[in-house]
Amino acid sequence: MANSKFEYVKAFEKEVYLLPETYMVVRVDGRGFHKLSETYKFEKPNDLNALELMNKAAQSVMEKIPEALLAYGDSDEYSFLLQKNCEIFERREAKLTSTFSSTFTAYYNFYWKDYFPNSPLTPERLPTFDARVVLYPNQQNVKDYFSWRQVDCHINNLYNTTFWQLILKKGLTPQESEKRLMGTLSSDKNEILFTELGINYNDEAEIYKKGTVLIREWELKDDQPSLNERELSKRQKDRLRKKFRKAKIQKYHIDIINEGFWNERPWLLES
Amino acid sequence: MANSKFEYVKAFEKEVYLLPETYMVVRVDGRGFHKLSETYKFEKPNDLNALELMNKAAQSVMEKIPEALLAYGDSDEYSFLLQKNCEIFERREAKLTSTFSSTFTAYYNFYWKDYFPNSPLTPERLPTFDARVVLYPNQQNVKDYFSWRQVDCHINNLYNTTFWQLILKKGLTPQESEKRLMGTLSSDKNEILFTELGINYNDEAEIYKKGTVLIREWELKDDQPSLNERELSKRQKDRLRKKFRKAKIQKYHIDIINEGFWNERPWLLES
Amino acid sequence: MANSKFEYVKAFEKEVYLLPETYMVVRVDGRGFHKLSETYKFEKPNDLNALELMNKAAQSVMEKIPEALLAYGDSDEYSFLLQKNCEIFERREAKLTSTFSSTFTAYYNFYWKDYFPNSPLTPERLPTFDARVVLYPNQQNVKDYFSWRQVDCHINNLYNTTFWQLILKKGLTPQESEKRLMGTLSSDKNEILFTELGINYNDEAEIYKKGTVLIREWELKDDQPSLNERELSKRQKDRLRKKFRKAKIQKYHIDIINEGFWNERPWLLES
Amino acid sequence: MANSKFEYVKAFEKEVYLLPETYMVVRVDGRGFHKLSETYKFEKPNDLNALELMNKAAQSVMEKIPEALLAYGDSDEYSFLLQKNCEIFERREAKLTSTFSSTFTAYYNFYWKDYFPNSPLTPERLPTFDARVVLYPNQQNVKDYFSWRQVDCHINNLYNTTFWQLILKKGLTPQESEKRLMGTLSSDKNEILFTELGINYNDEAEIYKKGTVLIREWELKDDQPSLNERELSKRQKDRLRKKFRKAKIQKYHIDIINEGFWNERPWLLES
Repeated sequence: MANSKFEYVKAFEKEVYLLPETYMVVRVDGRGFHKLSETYKFEKPNDLNALELMNKAAQSVMEKIPEALLAYGDSDEYSFLLQKNCEIFERREAKLTSTFSSTFTAYYNFYWKDYFPNSPLTPERLPTFDARVVLYPNQQNVKDYFSWRQVDCHINNLYNTTFWQLILKKGLTPQESEKRLMGTLSSDKNEILFTELGINYNDEAEIYKKGTVLIREWELKDDQPSLNERELSKRQKDRLRKKFRKAKIQKYHIDIINEGFWNERPWLLES
Repeated sequence: MANSKFEYVKAFEKEVYLLPETYMVVRVDGRGFHKLSETYKFEKPNDLNALELMNKAAQSVMEKIPEALLAYGDSDEYSFLLQKNCEIFERREAKLTSTFSSTFTAYYNFYWKDYFPNSPLTPERLPTFDARVVLYPNQQNVKDYFSWRQVDCHINNLYNTTFWQLILKKGLTPQESEKRLMGTLSSDKNEILFTELGINYNDEAEIYKKGTVLIREWELKDDQPSLNERELSKRQKDRLRKKFRKAKIQKYHIDIINEGFWNERPWLLES
Repeated sequence: MANSKFEYVKAFEKEVYLLPETYMVVRVDGRGFHKLSETYKFEKPNDLNALELMNKAAQSVMEKIPEALLAYGDSDEYSFLLQKNCEIFERREAKLTSTFSSTFTAYYNFYWKDYFPNSPLTPERLPTFDARVVLYPNQQNVKDYFSWRQVDCHINNLYNTTFWQLILKKGLTPQESEKRLMGTLSSDKNEILFTELGINYNDEAEIYKKGTVLIREWELKDDQPSLNERELSKRQKDRLRKKFRKAKIQKYHIDIINEGFWNERPWLLES
Repeated sequence: MANSKFEYVKAFEKEVYLLPETYMVVRVDGRGFHKLSETYKFEKPNDLNALELMNKAAQSVMEKIPEALLAYGDSDEYSFLLQKNCEIFERREAKLTSTFSSTFTAYYNFYWKDYFPNSPLTPERLPTFDARVVLYPNQQNVKDYFSWRQVDCHINNLYNTTFWQLILKKGLTPQESEKRLMGTLSSDKNEILFTELGINYNDEAEIYKKGTVLIREWELKDDQPSLNERELSKRQKDRLRKKFRKAKIQKYHIDIINEGFWNERPWLLES
């Protein structure tokens, strides 16, 4: 049986190779997590177990995919920064998006039982994630991307905290709470929380206010070679990569908008 | 805190909208399944449980994504045919690939315990899948695509069956078996199987020789409206879609290369 | 001097290969032709010389690019239909758009002197054209594309004829004429033309009302081989192509919306 | 007559918007210039009039398209560098490639008579050009791109000079000359030129050895505002752009590989 008669269909497969020397950020997003959080009864406004499960899945992805230098996540999303010059999957877009979504999904589902021992998954609503890759040509773009996500975390968390506390503590219906917050500024929400609900927003947990950042920590001592791969021999590169993969992944709930964060970790944007 | 300063980074996100009125085929592929099959000790040349787990995951994907009309799979891959005119995810490529890979992964991992009760998954090697979408402009291309996959299944299975039986029954090493088969034609392999190994390839299980095809069966009676949506009213369409989603998904191990297969199910290519 | 140090920049060049077995339509559009028509004092509402120069340029493009089967144009635009299976420029998008825009521009400028002998071109405003390729998966799409352009020609010409005749015959200012036509239907404009301006729109020249279609005419006699190239030998194909390139290009101002037009010329959509 | 029935075909038009904040280089290439140079009897190895006509066309393109900051050309090609942040044509790829190819073609054909007064163009072989856009994420890439082109110019010119002088001065046939040069290094060709043909390659005209660079010269004095547009008001931007467009375009035949060239003109890469 000759295969050749049908093989012409392969020519219809189009690979998109992403621009070289450009930062790639892969963002993974929960699909239908509003309903999922109801099915499995997530706590409102924030479910610490759900967030830590996201963190666990993201950390597992970073361990499997060493080109991921940094990850930032909050709510049901996680963004991964890849090395600027990396040739992961030959920079093929579909390979990148589908591998990240699949790997994140596998770990999230695998570790579910550790974070929700009393809410086993049911096949009617398994957690799934979509993914996209975004290209950023320079360092400022990358910093601004992650700042955008962290500002978004803050805005959403302030809203959600006020929205849910009005329901939980004051007995408002969701509609009433929504109406109450319509048109309010951040300062108004802080005021409502403080005056009406007895909550100082500053005292809320950092993981809720700032999200979580995972970093492949790499102490850049003077005797360590630069991560700029162009100048290294093949053998030096291999050794460096091996070492780099073993660098411990650290978890923080800190401000990543200020310049200091990036200045202290030059390898994130230079390598 | 103003969000606007950073929001410009959104403009770097590029959506690819796939050509309308074109058949979309999503193919999901196991990542590193050669090693995975060793880790979890899959039977060689074919592990029936592993294949049925693939089928279960594919069927679950079809139940979740009603635009999938047909799926064909063998080994560690599965191809899904979507309705030509469907507007799933607005035909955005990254959304399609990442959703299929994630959903397939979630079900494959979820049902693992039912098919491999004695080989629990370990986090060091969770099953993951990548995915791609391929566009085909006409019916012949689509038939030829699935024929290509089924021919591929046949070629690989004949090779693997002979390769492994030489090892299992004749005590050859993998290297010796590979060398023995180098340059052989299909007829040679059939002969080796029959004469040396006492196996009539025709008697092998259909699921190994033909793979598995899943079809959303829809009996096209005279009194049923055509699936050509253009001529229907919005309300008729909605009713039709609802009905269609409930159509039972059937599993076969049959020849999909012959014209008869497609002629009997006109809704696969016309809708 | 080693070239290799810089040659890595070639990897940033991305070719887009358009989907095989899909109809390609290239549309060429005049850039800034509103101002250009003022600079060179085109007659209003229609300048016959300007239209015939467009036709001459389009015909020249078809003679240079034998894969172009049909072209339809009106005003300052022209659309070219390419053979469905053709491998022109390996179907590279940038090559297609830039070659069509360049070739059309070269001929339009070259023949300008024959159609506007008293208005020589000045370097401050040379005629230029942009171009795009659009893919259509099936015959109906292609017919509908050209119908869309011809309907557009009709709508614009009816408007422009009424708009300009109100100015020319009734002394309205452009603003008054625009206001007069605001919200009018086709039937209203026909009525204004007939009652107020003494013009029966049906008597207007066909080239204005229908635009121009150029066809590589190919009489499909019974003894001629089908144009379906898949079944032909390499030598038959070459002979056929040679013959086809010599097929005369005919010019018409006819209805291309009706099915008859396409039925009489099956090679346009089948080859 | 309703337009809506056909207008769905517009949805098949796909615009590609190129990545923001990334350098765009448009390269225009002569189509079939080997044959064209024979038809119009260009002098070999270099025809000064042909090169100056390329330069004239490129300069005219820069005057029409003020976003073009720099252009480098040799032989039958020209590369244009656009402002990194510019929003020309909303960064739509097809618009960019087709406009550059069309505009370059229009000027090249228009000025032909000034450079080849005795060889009028014939419609059988009009000069045409294709075009492509390439994206470069950082300054080093851009410098390396133009270095690549200038090194290419040098390599080709050294080869062509030796190839043609062997024919012109020593009476070799093209085949003999080609064979003579097979496998030779640059030093070998210099030696052949010097010893056998009495030519010191260093004495060849700079335009042949280095190609031509066109620069929108803009003296960056201390009192001039930075070109970094982000920090400027809308009104300041407009004024700046107007001023910039009037900056004179200068022509050079100089080394653009050394850092000095770029350091002296910071606005080329910073704006």
